[in-house]
Amino acid sequence: MTSDVLPSWSDCPARTAIIDFVSKVTNKGGPDYVPPSERIATFDNDGTLWCEQPMQVQLFFLLERVKHLAEKYPDIKDRQPFKAFLAHDMATLHSLGKRALMELAFATHAGMTEDDFEKIARAWLETATHPKFQRLFKHCTYQPQIELLDYLREHDFKIFIVSGGGIDFIRAFAEEAYGIPRECVVGSSAKLHFEMQSGQAVLMKVAELNSFDDRDVKPQNIGLHIGRRPILAFGNSDGDLAMLRYVKTGPGARLALLLHHDDGVRETAYGPEFKLSPLMEALERAAEYGITVVSMRNDWRAVFGDA
Amino acid sequence: MTSDVLPSWSDCPARTAIIDFVSKVTNKGGPDYVPPSERIATFDNDGTLWCEQPMQVQLFFLLERVKHLAEKYPDIKDRQPFKAFLAHDMATLHSLGKRALMELAFATHAGMTEDDFEKIARAWLETATHPKFQRLFKHCTYQPQIELLDYLREHDFKIFIVSGGGIDFIRAFAEEAYGIPRECVVGSSAKLHFEMQSGQAVLMKVAELNSFDDRDVKPQNIGLHIGRRPILAFGNSDGDLAMLRYVKTGPGARLALLLHHDDGVRETAYGPEFKLSPLMEALERAAEYGITVVSMRNDWRAVFGDA
Repeated sequence: MTSDVLPSWSDCPARTAIIDFVSKVTNKGGPDYVPPSERIATFDNDGTLWCEQPMQVQLFFLLERVKHLAEKYPDIKDRQPFKAFLAHDMATLHSLGKRALMELAFATHAGMTEDDFEKIARAWLETATHPKFQRLFKHCTYQPQIELLDYLREHDFKIFIVSGGGIDFIRAFAEEAYGIPRECVVGSSAKLHFEMQSGQAVLMKVAELNSFDDRDVKPQNIGLHIGRRPILAFGNSDGDLAMLRYVKTGPGARLALLLHHDDGVRETAYGPEFKLSPLMEALERAAEYGITVVSMRNDWRAVFGDA
Repeated sequence: MTSDVLPSWSDCPARTAIIDFVSKVTNKGGPDYVPPSERIATFDNDGTLWCEQPMQVQLFFLLERVKHLAEKYPDIKDRQPFKAFLAHDMATLHSLGKRALMELAFATHAGMTEDDFEKIARAWLETATHPKFQRLFKHCTYQPQIELLDYLREHDFKIFIVSGGGIDFIRAFAEEAYGIPRECVVGSSAKLHFEMQSGQAVLMKVAELNSFDDRDVKPQNIGLHIGRRPILAFGNSDGDLAMLRYVKTGPGARLALLLHHDDGVRETAYGPEFKLSPLMEALERAAEYGITVVSMRNDWRAVFGDA
C-alpha cells in the first residue's frame, strides 16, 4: 500500500478495504478478477459526495426559485408546502413528506425546457454559497471522495451517481465537480414532453413525477439505466440501503461503503434531529449486511478541498 | 476522403455527408467543433443496425416463449393476442396494435429476475437462425453500420441504442454484436421490482409497462438516460422521426440519417405491406426536415458481414 494513494484518507480499515478490493478485482488471472466493462461503481450524491446539511443543496436552490414564484403569485405564500418552506419551518416540511419537496420542485422547475432549466441551475451554482462553510456549494464536495473517484477511474471503473436528488440539477454540476458525465447520472426525475416549438424540437419538463429515486427505486433505476449490478456502492443513509444490499449480495467480490457523519467540528455530526437523512438500519446493521462504515471524523484527514 | 474509411459504403452522398460531418465536428478550432463529451450518437436498432423483416427478431424470440407458455397453459391458445401470434396471423396481430406485443412480452418475460431473463435470451441467441438469410440472428447485423459505429468511436463518439425493442433483450447481445455496452442501451422496458430473496437482492421483471420507447418517447428517454441532445442519429422509420428531428434541430452541426430498405435482392424492399415499420412521413419529408436518406440498394456495397 502506497501512501500517495487516497492521501486524504487516514490509514484506516475502510481505506485498506478499498485498496484491497480494487487490487483484487483488477488482478488479471486472480479469482476475483472483474473485466473493466463490469467495473461499475454507484455513488449516492447528497451526504456522500457533498454535504447535505443544514439541508440538501438543491433545497437552497429550490428556496430561491420559490421566492421568485412567490413574488409573481403571492397567494402561494399561504399554501403548503410553500408556506412552511418560505418560513424555514423544516419540522412542518418534513411532516409533509419527501413528496412535498417534489411538489415544490414541480411548481418551480416544470413548464420550461431542459435547456432553460440547465441555464438557471448553472447560474445559481456559479454564485450560491453555503451558509455555514462559506464556500460555493459546488465546492462543498468531499476531497477524500474526489480522490476515490479518481482512484477508481484510474483502475477502469465506470462511475455513476444514483441520487434521490433531481437528475437535471445534478447534471448541471457533476461533470465539473466530479468528472462524472451527464449520461452517468441517475436521479429523481419529472416526466419530459417532446414538442416542436417554431420548428425546434424541445423537451419540456412536466409537473408529473417520473421517478422518485430513493430506497428500493435506486436499484430499480440501476437496472433501467445501467443494466448491470455494480460491484461497488457508496451511500450515507437508509435511502441507500437497498442499493448497498443489491451491490453487496451479488456474486464475486463486492464492496459496499457507508459514510457516517460524525464530525461536528469539520462538517456535521448527524443525530436524531436530522430527519431528512435517517441513518438507522444502515448503520445499526452494517456489520450484518457486510457494509464497511467510514467515519468522517476518524477516517478522513481532510473533508473539503481547496476552494 | 480515403477509400479505406467505411469500405462497405459506396461512394455516395450519404457517405460523403458522414465523413464531412465527422471531419467538421472533430476539427479543433473550426466553427463546428464539438468536444468529445458532447459527441453523442443515437441509433435505432431494428431495421437500422440489424434486420427487422419478416418480423422483428425479438418477435421470433417471443414466439418461442409463447409456445413454451402454451404448453404449460393450453387455454391461452384461444386468447388474443396469443391466438393470432401462434397462428402467425400478423394481420390480426398488427390490428391489435403494438401494445399487444407488450402483452405478449409481459406474459412470457415477467415474473423472473433480470439475471434469469438474460440467461434465456442469451441461450436463444446462440442458436436461433433467421428463416430467410439462414444465418444466426445475431449475425443479421448490417456490416456498413458496424463500420460506421467503429468509425464514430475512432472519433471519440459515444454511441447509444435508442430502440422500441425490449431493453433487456438488446442488452443481451449489443456488447458482442456492436461493441455497445449495456448502460448505453435505451429501449422499451417493464417495471422492475427490488426484492430480497433468501438474503439475495434481486430485480424482478414485473408485468407492467415502464416505457414504450417509440416515437416521441425516444427523445424523452434520451433526455432521461443521456441528458444531452445527440449530434447524430440514425433511424429507419416514422418511429424514429421525433428522435431525428430532436437531433437535427439542435444548435451547431447535426446529422440525421434514415435507412431506406429498398433492396429486395440482398435484404428487403419495404412496401405498404410492412405495417410494423411504416416509413411514410420520414421518407416523404426527409428533404424538408434535413434528413439524409441512405439507400440500402445503392449506398451499401455489402449488407451483411461474414458470419
